[in-house]
Amino acid sequence: MSVYLDHAAATPLDPAVLAAMQPYFSEAFYNPSSPYAPAVAVRRDYEAAKGAIASTIGAKSGEITMTAGATESINLAFASGGGHIVTTVIEHQSVLAAAARADHTLVDVDKNGRVDPANIGAAIRPDTWLVSVALANNEIGTIQPLGKIAEIIKQIRDERLAAGNTTPLYLHSDASQGAGQLDMHVTRLGVDMLTLNAAKVYGPKQVGLLYAARTVRLSPQIVGGGQESGLRSGTENVAGVIGFAKALQQADEHRHSEVMRLSKLRDDLQKRLTDAFEDAVISGHHKYRLAGHLHISFPGLDAERLIFGLEARDVLVATGSACAANKGTRSHVLDAIGLEPSVADGSLRISLGKATNQAAIDLASEAIIAEVQREKERLAR
Amino acid sequence: MSVYLDHAAATPLDPAVLAAMQPYFSEAFYNPSSPYAPAVAVRRDYEAAKGAIASTIGAKSGEITMTAGATESINLAFASGGGHIVTTVIEHQSVLAAAARADHTLVDVDKNGRVDPANIGAAIRPDTWLVSVALANNEIGTIQPLGKIAEIIKQIRDERLAAGNTTPLYLHSDASQGAGQLDMHVTRLGVDMLTLNAAKVYGPKQVGLLYAARTVRLSPQIVGGGQESGLRSGTENVAGVIGFAKALQQADEHRHSEVMRLSKLRDDLQKRLTDAFEDAVISGHHKYRLAGHLHISFPGLDAERLIFGLEARDVLVATGSACAANKGTRSHVLDAIGLEPSVADGSLRISLGKATNQAAIDLASEAIIAEVQREKERLAR
Repeated sequence: MSVYLDHAAATPLDPAVLAAMQPYFSEAFYNPSSPYAPAVAVRRDYEAAKGAIASTIGAKSGEITMTAGATESINLAFASGGGHIVTTVIEHQSVLAAAARADHTLVDVDKNGRVDPANIGAAIRPDTWLVSVALANNEIGTIQPLGKIAEIIKQIRDERLAAGNTTPLYLHSDASQGAGQLDMHVTRLGVDMLTLNAAKVYGPKQVGLLYAARTVRLSPQIVGGGQESGLRSGTENVAGVIGFAKALQQADEHRHSEVMRLSKLRDDLQKRLTDAFEDAVISGHHKYRLAGHLHISFPGLDAERLIFGLEARDVLVATGSACAANKGTRSHVLDAIGLEPSVADGSLRISLGKATNQAAIDLASEAIIAEVQREKERLAR
Repeated sequence: MSVYLDHAAATPLDPAVLAAMQPYFSEAFYNPSSPYAPAVAVRRDYEAAKGAIASTIGAKSGEITMTAGATESINLAFASGGGHIVTTVIEHQSVLAAAARADHTLVDVDKNGRVDPANIGAAIRPDTWLVSVALANNEIGTIQPLGKIAEIIKQIRDERLAAGNTTPLYLHSDASQGAGQLDMHVTRLGVDMLTLNAAKVYGPKQVGLLYAARTVRLSPQIVGGGQESGLRSGTENVAGVIGFAKALQQADEHRHSEVMRLSKLRDDLQKRLTDAFEDAVISGHHKYRLAGHLHISFPGLDAERLIFGLEARDVLVATGSACAANKGTRSHVLDAIGLEPSVADGSLRISLGKATNQAAIDLASEAIIAEVQREKERLAR
C-alpha cells in the first residue's frame, strides 16, 4: 500500500459517503421531478441534503446551486455579470480562464503568496463588479485575508452608492482547497459567492456548489428543464449531492481536531526535511497556511525525477497542482511568489489527509530524504 | 414492489454498471491528471472508456466530449456558433431553451409528431448554422427521419458552397431517448453532433456526452484546467464515464432482442387498453415510435388523478415528460400534434424498460383499466 500525500489533487470517497449514496443508485433511482410518491421522496431527500449543505456553510438552501464541480461553479459565478473583474495572479486555472473572458486585473501577491487587501481595493474600478480571491491556494496552501478584503469591498460599495454608482460589487471565493480545514461560514468569511467541491473533502468527483447570497443575481450558463431554480438545468445528481452533504458534514464535524492533527504531522515532516537539507525552501505563509499542506523545493533538483523516485519508494506526491502538472509548464504560482526557476523546478507539493498517520509521515520523510540525497549525489558525480 | 413504467424519466443503475464504477470511488480514486503510476492507470482506464463509448457510436475518441448530462451537451452544442438555428416545436425543454437564446425557427410536426424534412429544408436560411432535431421524442416516442434531414442539409451545404457562402451548417440530434433502442452510429444517422445521456440507459445520472465530428468547431462553455481537449474543464468524472461506457455497451449488445421484446409487450398493453376503452387516443407514429413507449389519452379524464390512483395500485407512470410534469403546465408536444386540451389532460406516458416483463404488463393493464373505469364512473355520477 502506497503512502498517498496528494490530497489536494484528489481524495478517496469516504466509505460513509459511499454508503449514503448507494440507495440512490438502485432502489431510489427515480427522477426527482416525477410526480409519484417514491420520486417525491427522492426530491425530499435531495432538498434535505441541499439544506444540510447550506446550513453547514451558514446559508439558506435557496442560495445554493448544485453544479458538476468547482470549475463549473466558478464559470457560473463569472458569467453572471458584465464589467471589470479583479482577482489575483495565483488563482487556480479555472478562475484565471474565466477571468480571461472579461476585462480583468490580476493583483500581485507577496513572497508568501498573500495578497494585500489594500492592493485589491486599489485595483477596483468604478465598473468592477466582481472580486474573486481563493480562500487558500492549491499549490502552496497560503490562506488569504478574506475578511479584510470583504471589509474593503463593503467600504467601496458604500462609497459607490453615496456617489450614485449602482454597479454591484461582489466578492467570490473559490474555497475548494479549504473545506475540512477552514471555517466555511459565508457570513464570517464575508463573501457574496462561494465555490465548493465535493471531491476535495472525500466526496464524489464532479459535484460542486456555488453559494450566491440573495443579493446576487446569477445568470444560468446551462438552460433547459429549469432545475436548481432555473440557474442550472439538468436532472439532479441525487446520489452525488447526498454524498456531498455527508462528506461536508463529516469534514465540518472533525475539522478542529483534524487541523491540529494534520498540522502536527506536517510540521514534523517539514522539520525533518529542512533539518536534513539546509538549502530546502518552504513556500507558503508560515502561519496562514493549510494544515495539511507542505510545499518544499530542493534547489537544483528536478521534481519530476523526484516524484518518480518517490513513487518507487511507495510515496505519492505532486510536483505542482494536478491541472498544471499535466502540461509540463512551470507553475504560475511559484513564478508569482518570485521563486527562482532552479528552485521552482525542484518543488514537491505534499498534501496530507484523513488517512495520513505518523507511520506514513515516518515512511515519507525517510523516502524523501533518501531520494533527495540520491539525486544530489547523482548530480555531484 | 411497484411496477415501474417511467423509464423515459429515469432508469435504475444496472448492477454491472455500478460494479464497473465502484473501484473508481475507492482504490482508484486518483486525479487522472496526476503524474504517478496509479493515477496514470486511472487516466488510461478513463480514456479506454471514452474510446469504447466512441466506438459504440462509430466515432473517434477525440470527437467525444464528456459532460454532466444531456442538458449540458445540448447547451455546449448550441453555444458553439452564431447565427440562425432551426429546430422543431416538439423538442425537449433543454433544446428549446438553448435555441431561445439565439435567432431561431421552430418547425411544425404532423399529428403523429413527425417533422417533414422538406419543412426543415425550407426553414434553413443563408445564415443558419445549426439544425437540431431529437432522434426520438421523449413524450410520444415518435422517431424522426434524421437520415432524410441529413440528406437535405448536405444538399443545402453543397449549394451554399457553390454560391460562395461558407457559413457552416451542422445537424445536431439529442438522442437521449433513443439509446438502447435505436442505432446510434453517427455516420448512419448522418449527424454532425449527437447528445447522449447515461441516465437513460441504466447508467449514472449527470453523465452525458456530446459527439462533434472533426469538422465542427466547439466553443467551451466551462473553461479552466483544460480537460476534454479544452472543451469542458473540470476534473474528470472517472467513475461516471466508466459506468456510461459499460451501460452503453450493454444497451448496444442487447438492442435488437430488447426492441423486439419491448415492442411486443407495449403492443400487448396498447391493445388491451384500446380494447377496453374505445375512446382512448394513442399518440406518436404507429410505425416510427420507440419500442418501449406508449402515450395514451383518456378524453375527459384528469391524468394527475389517474397517476395517483395508479400509484395506489402499485403502478408508476408519468403524465408527460418529467421536466414538464413538475410545473403543472400543458405539454407543448401534445399542443403541437393538435391534441384537444380535454384529450391531452387525460394523457399517460408509459415507458417500458429492462425490468418490464409480461407479469408487469398484466398488472399494469389491469390497474389502468380499473382506474380509468373508476374515474369514468365517478365523473358519470
